[in-house]
Amino acid sequence: MKVSERIDRIAYSPIRKLAPLADAAKSRGLKVFHLNIGQPDIHTPDCGLASLGKIDRKVLEYSPSDGFLSLRERLSAYYSGYGLDFSPSEIIVTTGASEALMFLFMTCMDFGDEVIMAEPTYANYLAFAAAAGVRAVPVGTDIRDGFALPSPEAFERLITPRTKAILICSPNNPSGTLYTPEELRGLEDIVRRHGLYLFSDEVYREFIYDGAPYMSAGHLDAIRDNVVIVDSFSKRFSECGIRVGCIATRNAEVRAGMMKLCQARLSPPLLGQIVAEASFDAGKDYIASVIAEYSARRDTLVDGLRSIPGVFVPKPSGAFYVMAELPVDDAEKFCSWCLTDFSLEGETVMLSPGAGFYITPGVGRKQVRMAYVINQKALDKSVQILSRALDAYSRR
Amino acid sequence: MKVSERIDRIAYSPIRKLAPLADAAKSRGLKVFHLNIGQPDIHTPDCGLASLGKIDRKVLEYSPSDGFLSLRERLSAYYSGYGLDFSPSEIIVTTGASEALMFLFMTCMDFGDEVIMAEPTYANYLAFAAAAGVRAVPVGTDIRDGFALPSPEAFERLITPRTKAILICSPNNPSGTLYTPEELRGLEDIVRRHGLYLFSDEVYREFIYDGAPYMSAGHLDAIRDNVVIVDSFSKRFSECGIRVGCIATRNAEVRAGMMKLCQARLSPPLLGQIVAEASFDAGKDYIASVIAEYSARRDTLVDGLRSIPGVFVPKPSGAFYVMAELPVDDAEKFCSWCLTDFSLEGETVMLSPGAGFYITPGVGRKQVRMAYVINQKALDKSVQILSRALDAYSRR
Repeated sequence: MKVSERIDRIAYSPIRKLAPLADAAKSRGLKVFHLNIGQPDIHTPDCGLASLGKIDRKVLEYSPSDGFLSLRERLSAYYSGYGLDFSPSEIIVTTGASEALMFLFMTCMDFGDEVIMAEPTYANYLAFAAAAGVRAVPVGTDIRDGFALPSPEAFERLITPRTKAILICSPNNPSGTLYTPEELRGLEDIVRRHGLYLFSDEVYREFIYDGAPYMSAGHLDAIRDNVVIVDSFSKRFSECGIRVGCIATRNAEVRAGMMKLCQARLSPPLLGQIVAEASFDAGKDYIASVIAEYSARRDTLVDGLRSIPGVFVPKPSGAFYVMAELPVDDAEKFCSWCLTDFSLEGETVMLSPGAGFYITPGVGRKQVRMAYVINQKALDKSVQILSRALDAYSRR
Repeated sequence: MKVSERIDRIAYSPIRKLAPLADAAKSRGLKVFHLNIGQPDIHTPDCGLASLGKIDRKVLEYSPSDGFLSLRERLSAYYSGYGLDFSPSEIIVTTGASEALMFLFMTCMDFGDEVIMAEPTYANYLAFAAAAGVRAVPVGTDIRDGFALPSPEAFERLITPRTKAILICSPNNPSGTLYTPEELRGLEDIVRRHGLYLFSDEVYREFIYDGAPYMSAGHLDAIRDNVVIVDSFSKRFSECGIRVGCIATRNAEVRAGMMKLCQARLSPPLLGQIVAEASFDAGKDYIASVIAEYSARRDTLVDGLRSIPGVFVPKPSGAFYVMAELPVDDAEKFCSWCLTDFSLEGETVMLSPGAGFYITPGVGRKQVRMAYVINQKALDKSVQILSRALDAYSRR
């Protein structure tokens, strides 16, 4: 089966069905608040932007296939700040976390192998799995439990001879959930005993609220060689467009396999690497102000949603997403209806139907994902619109 | 089998074995002329470089998954200049031609399908085929015949029920050969009768010398829906590092399948697209001067090589490569020896062993690829070094 067909089969993308409806709404003159996408409105650090004006090259040539050493040195120092010990040679720069994940699946798994991941999950994981010919096996979580990491036993029940890896994302997209050190310790044991890889998507590492304790998969000493951290500059410095990410792993065999794919695609983006490296100069003040902003937005959104009758929403500790359960039978239909049949003073909202984040058919149909990547006033307005829309929808 | 193992099995990369030898030679104080790589020394157009200083954005955000419309409009107009009619919606911007090829293989072929390509071939094609689980089937060419495109019958003999596509590259990497309109017409008939895709890598389109007549696969009207053009800004404007390429095809099904992978990886590089679009302003003068420079270099290199006893080299009409046959039994050993055991006045040369460009084991062992991406003086010097090295090698 072609990859595009495998994607069709495993990755259900209701959001792509909604996009034309949003365009149509806008062409009718409606203002649409986009809570559906993960594109932050936060400014890229000035030092990152300024680096573009300082590029003094006559040839925009290939960079090394594993990325500039100077960038990998900055990444190594950055990881040290989190108590993570990765030398520059244990880091490979990639074209965003997207390429990192696709190449990692291809490097570590055979066609037909299985990777276990908690659902709801980042929908594009399923496309990367399809590209690698790998089966994504879901382990369920519960919105009533704040989408906590499932128990070690729940993971273990799903392990087969084809299981090669577990993929986690903490802080999580789409739920915002931050996994606790205890949860990660439970996973460590399973990974070690079954000799699996643990792929840990940590692109939202900075965005943790209320002083919640952070643990990286890189801190799990008993599985040092099993862990591969997947990372990206996109969210950290609000520079999604530069397409720069990395993997960090102590596993030399994984790095050697991955490098074959990296050499084939020649190099990661030169210009993005220059911006990424310069962005580290933004320092703690930049990140602190971004965290304060997201934290306040989260409170605004969650408190607002909780004031709407019938809405259930956990208050997650990280990232910039919430998954909420709405008092509707089919959130996809409701999300469509918001774009086609509803408006409040010329405005409406676009949300991501929850089903698109689940692998198991029929699960999560009452849920939606919302990204708080718009300002507080817009979030307040969005909550008002959603409240009135739910009321009108129930009486339609 | 993991992709990294598949790459190992099908893509033989002697050049990666030579890289440490070149590093060692340099650390002994030797100057190494690099004729082994396709990284041009030609300056990126000033207008492309200047665009970086003019970026007035506060957020370096995602661009559309199929690339900026403004860039696709410039590409559409550019193709019109070659008599190629592709609307902006028939173009998808990719992260270099590398991503274009990998995604195209995944989109158009099932695991186990076959793609036929002339050998010698661009070695990374084999890695992309491995990533897609596709078998690269070689059709032989002859250095004595200037690596001309094989006859339609030679292609047809290799077609099986698993054959889904033919991949060509003209002007060719690694041979520099430009396929004639007659050769392409012969291929058109085969592609049409067997209902295959024709993937046409045309990244060297500009670099044609002596007024040789150019034909793109996009001109083959009988197979309008079968042809997918693969393109890149890397060589055209000497901006390999920006990682921007594209596909252009009238086949809506291919575009729709490809878009699923493009959406999964979110977007091509934002900054590279800005540079690429601005680089079109360089206009015909820039390209004309680059063509004049490459043409003169080709003459210098080919005439120089032909003055060395026992060397056979065709004079290709395009790109910036030549494949030469040397009077040695094993060019890989000779290339290593040049780095480990030879120098002339503190200088030596690094060449690409020809075997790395062949799929069939044992073929092309006397050949090397040389890229004329260094200036004429350096080329002259390289020819002198090679001449003396061959003489010393035969008498060692």
